Amino acid sequence: MPLWRIDHTEGIFTDEDKARLAESVTDHYARFGLPRFYVVVLFSETSASSFYVGGEPGTPAVRVSIDHIARTSPDEAARQRTAAWIGRILGPFMARIPGAHWEFHADETSRDLWLINGLVPPPEGSEAEQEWARSNLPSVY
Amino acid sequence: MPLWRIDHTEGIFTDEDKARLAESVTDHYARFGLPRFYVVVLFSETSASSFYVGGEPGTPAVRVSIDHIARTSPDEAARQRTAAWIGRILGPFMARIPGAHWEFHADETSRDLWLINGLVPPPEGSEAEQEWARSNLPSVY
Amino acid sequence: MPLWRIDHTEGIFTDEDKARLAESVTDHYARFGLPRFYVVVLFSETSASSFYVGGEPGTPAVRVSIDHIARTSPDEAARQRTAAWIGRILGPFMARIPGAHWEFHADETSRDLWLINGLVPPPEGSEAEQEWARSNLPSVY
Repeated sequence: MPLWRIDHTEGIFTDEDKARLAESVTDHYARFGLPRFYVVVLFSETSASSFYVGGEPGTPAVRVSIDHIARTSPDEAARQRTAAWIGRILGPFMARIPGAHWEFHADETSRDLWLINGLVPPPEGSEAEQEWARSNLPSVY
Repeated sequence: MPLWRIDHTEGIFTDEDKARLAESVTDHYARFGLPRFYVVVLFSETSASSFYVGGEPGTPAVRVSIDHIARTSPDEAARQRTAAWIGRILGPFMARIPGAHWEFHADETSRDLWLINGLVPPPEGSEAEQEWARSNLPSVY
Repeated sequence: MPLWRIDHTEGIFTDEDKARLAESVTDHYARFGLPRFYVVVLFSETSASSFYVGGEPGTPAVRVSIDHIARTSPDEAARQRTAAWIGRILGPFMARIPGAHWEFHADETSRDLWLINGLVPPPEGSEAEQEWARSNLPSVY
């Protein structure tokens, strides 16, 4: 967690774009104290004949599906702030592709059903989590 | 939203099948007043050696994962009606492939964690949502 | 349900590994009484330039996203037991790849939004579910 699954049509992102977007996303979570290795970003390119927006193929499109696990929004306002910053990260990348459809949604799932390298990730804000962030590696705590 | 992720084994759908299925799905949501461009359908073909049903490869199979965001079912009966109409859309496509395993499940996630083209989608049933549906485009409201 | 979506970098699994892992996963659920065909395991290989861990490409990695539908954990302890056994299934496969990042999370969604071959799966623990398990086929009940 977080997991960003970025489905897109052909020709949207260069490898450099992907690297920069993945770095922007990771930087953001790291500023909130999450270990960088918590952030996984997957890009998946789909041909026009397999990617439909509004029932039509051929629209340049990016559809991002996000799973949040380590942190859960306490209320509606927090969720809206989360959506806003995600939008601000994606916006500059999408502004260069006029006419593209771009959309994301995020789901929040239980920390209890989550392991990294076989370990239960340390509690939010704990000393162990800070150590995982500093070393950028999971370790027994 | 809705996002339909359709994972399938090889040779299940022709390009024409995909276009017709995506259109059927989109038509259904549009009848409930959703803008057509809310509906994204992604097809992903997986080879037999990477698609297991019951621990065995080689079964012709379609596994649909749906995310619903714009509308949430108020109760069990509404969820069952939703499952029923999804089944009626997929059924005719699957009936032509005897012996195939076909299955779907839907998740319902928060509207607050959802943006399209950087905009918060208008409230359910609002005038702005109707305008997005009429123009089939997102716009500032 | 359950659906295991296993995204991995190149060269992690041989076809034989995939078959053995899918079988291990399916065996586990079957011991809890689930029909084997409920278990769908999808492997998806992603190139280094499309798979980022901590903002960096190139880490050998396995990211598993699981959807649980047929059974829901009643409480935190049950969720932790579920995470533990999933970790025990994946661990031996991952131990052979030193330095790999491996992670999973599971989501639990509503049984009401789920059909197999157009049928509402029988209630948990019912005679009909046991018959589906015995025959390893969905049937009208």
